[in-house]
Amino acid sequence: MEQAQVLHGHIIDAPERHSLRCRAGHYLVFEQGRIAGVFPELPSRWEGCPVSRTEGLILPGLTDLHVHAPQYAFAGSGMDLPLLPWLESYTFPEEIRYADLDYAAAAYERFVRDLRASFTGRAVIFATCHSPASRLLRDKLAGSGLAAYVGRVSMDQYAPDGLREGPDAASQAEDWLREALGDGCGRVLPIVTPRFIPSCSPSLLTALSRIAAELDLPIQSHLSENRDEQALVSALYPEASCYAAVYDDFGLLGERTVLAHCVHCSQVELDLLAERGCFIAHCPQSNINLMSGAAPIRSYLEQGLRVGLGTDVAGGAHLSLFRAIQDAVAVSKLRCALLDEAQPLSLAEAFYLATRGGGSFFGPVGLLEADYVADALIIDDSSLTPESFSLEQRVQRAIYLLDERAIQGKYVEGQLIFSTADIQGVKP
Amino acid sequence: MEQAQVLHGHIIDAPERHSLRCRAGHYLVFEQGRIAGVFPELPSRWEGCPVSRTEGLILPGLTDLHVHAPQYAFAGSGMDLPLLPWLESYTFPEEIRYADLDYAAAAYERFVRDLRASFTGRAVIFATCHSPASRLLRDKLAGSGLAAYVGRVSMDQYAPDGLREGPDAASQAEDWLREALGDGCGRVLPIVTPRFIPSCSPSLLTALSRIAAELDLPIQSHLSENRDEQALVSALYPEASCYAAVYDDFGLLGERTVLAHCVHCSQVELDLLAERGCFIAHCPQSNINLMSGAAPIRSYLEQGLRVGLGTDVAGGAHLSLFRAIQDAVAVSKLRCALLDEAQPLSLAEAFYLATRGGGSFFGPVGLLEADYVADALIIDDSSLTPESFSLEQRVQRAIYLLDERAIQGKYVEGQLIFSTADIQGVKP
Repeated sequence: MEQAQVLHGHIIDAPERHSLRCRAGHYLVFEQGRIAGVFPELPSRWEGCPVSRTEGLILPGLTDLHVHAPQYAFAGSGMDLPLLPWLESYTFPEEIRYADLDYAAAAYERFVRDLRASFTGRAVIFATCHSPASRLLRDKLAGSGLAAYVGRVSMDQYAPDGLREGPDAASQAEDWLREALGDGCGRVLPIVTPRFIPSCSPSLLTALSRIAAELDLPIQSHLSENRDEQALVSALYPEASCYAAVYDDFGLLGERTVLAHCVHCSQVELDLLAERGCFIAHCPQSNINLMSGAAPIRSYLEQGLRVGLGTDVAGGAHLSLFRAIQDAVAVSKLRCALLDEAQPLSLAEAFYLATRGGGSFFGPVGLLEADYVADALIIDDSSLTPESFSLEQRVQRAIYLLDERAIQGKYVEGQLIFSTADIQGVKP
Repeated sequence: MEQAQVLHGHIIDAPERHSLRCRAGHYLVFEQGRIAGVFPELPSRWEGCPVSRTEGLILPGLTDLHVHAPQYAFAGSGMDLPLLPWLESYTFPEEIRYADLDYAAAAYERFVRDLRASFTGRAVIFATCHSPASRLLRDKLAGSGLAAYVGRVSMDQYAPDGLREGPDAASQAEDWLREALGDGCGRVLPIVTPRFIPSCSPSLLTALSRIAAELDLPIQSHLSENRDEQALVSALYPEASCYAAVYDDFGLLGERTVLAHCVHCSQVELDLLAERGCFIAHCPQSNINLMSGAAPIRSYLEQGLRVGLGTDVAGGAHLSLFRAIQDAVAVSKLRCALLDEAQPLSLAEAFYLATRGGGSFFGPVGLLEADYVADALIIDDSSLTPESFSLEQRVQRAIYLLDERAIQGKYVEGQLIFSTADIQGVKP
């Protein structure tokens, strides 16, 4: 039996969205990839275990609910257009290049290297419609130790030559998904991935829904990111009560469906998402960069919707979930200031989205308490005069001021998958 | 006579706000702290000079038009309140500590160290009302090689004990300013600094105006950051046509006055600023964090107002002017998306604000052409696959994705004041 691992430090998480739970100088015990518990004194049964001590902050692992791996190559450029022309001008031409496996290998190598070194522990990822390149991405992720869902993208209409699949779109998707399941890639699992309603024919949507049900797989797509996109869907499905209702009519909405953006949802649409128990991937920086707008996330949370954070690279420029937390607060504050609304998202709420909010898509993930998966992030904030601040303030300063150089250690399912060269304090 | 310095690389600046000027593989010649010219081939008169070559990007020096040095110690925390309660809860209690010269020495040491290592070449800085600590800040800045205006803050009302000066407020200010001028601190000059209208009595404002005129000094203050602040000014000066008119009535507005924020200016106020030729320090991140709002900067530029960027630490959390450029674009995009306005600020426009826009407060600063001051920033973007991108795209990706580790060299008045340990390509 694998030996338990014991970490000692300041343990901060957010069981509820309204506030951080700060436990100074506690013991966090991992056993068999799960958390055995958090204790002020180490219980006698683990007394023999070596203890890794840190003066920094022990946070739950962070989850990126929405990121496009093939778009990482042009992150930080081409943000001068709204969604639909942006797809045509920047995104589709780049994604076409992933037909070339050498190109894909080099680009995905950089993506996985940087994701591994980032704050992210788990991610829900779009690839492209190319099976070999998507397989390669999956393999590289599996080698990284990160946990992920990876989707080979399906699109058989509203797409340029080179990305638009033919009548075999459904069988190609099914083959890829079955193979990915068969390979036993550990923490990297496949996910059914219709790009969005406009890019999939009704027959493809029907088939993807059937495949998801047969293989018991989760689903990812996009929803109500942009007004023009909504109008396009409405033109294609004039009878649908809303954009989400189209997904629903094809049986694609459920508790294992994650929908990116949801910036412009009607109340009918929100009620449907709530009823089906779908996850919303809030991507604040992308919504700024592509001028999509500002999703009223606080209201979504008050309605009981399930929400996590996405970086949406390359609509968003940054892989950093610390930046995504900042951006979620920023977008909410500007929304309040400009639309004269009440309370914006607090730092605690945005932290909740990045941990428990998005983590729940992977099961019991995102809290530091017994029976949760043993994901954790250890942050060295010694450069930020921690002695002058409360633990809550230290978390906030770390999120605003530190970058990935401050990661002392990143654990996924109890495995230390990344640490700084000089992993001060943490000695596994 | 000092030898000329020659840099060779890709030279990018923004003479006009609408677009970047990109000169690939050109020579930039510095002589006597000024730019002698930019040339496709090196003119024969400098043929004997050693040439420093970079594969990276050579940008103009960047100017931070508004930053509070004593607030750096709590940057990234305490951003849950609007301006007036934020001042009382976080800022004033921190500033009081600068009466303790040991505390000030340690805190200003960190501020100057980090500002020197940042993208900033020039800054317009608020200190506190403490003369010894403000002198110490000035000395540390002088030692850093940065160019700056530093202001000891004046406030004799609307301030807590420990910060509220007495009847000698004006003479204290004058003594400090005269001493600073006499010291001949090179690139670090004093600036007259009434905190804002509510914190200065009419007699103090009158005196500060006189001192600025007598000593021929520039002036910095705050303007129309927040609605409650405006209401307070309006209650104090019910006859004034606008907040700026109060400054104007005391003779404090001119071409060497910089006013931070200007988020909620009326057209009357803007017309007055334009007439007087004042500078506006746009502080987008601070305006988000304190929920001040989104200044319509594009409209200000179209009206011919003079605008630069400020980080406003600690209303803003980050010293980085690359981040301020991102934030200026972000705030403008969200303003457009939420208020259904036309065109947002482009990357080129935000770059213009950070270079020529704010640089002009220091004279001929912020362009890479003959007779401008020899300020430059050399950025190593080799980590961002530069071979796949145009120079414009490379600048954008550098601004969004790189941090201060990418600074190969930072020149102020021809002096290399900061470079990475391994200054690849640039060999001065």
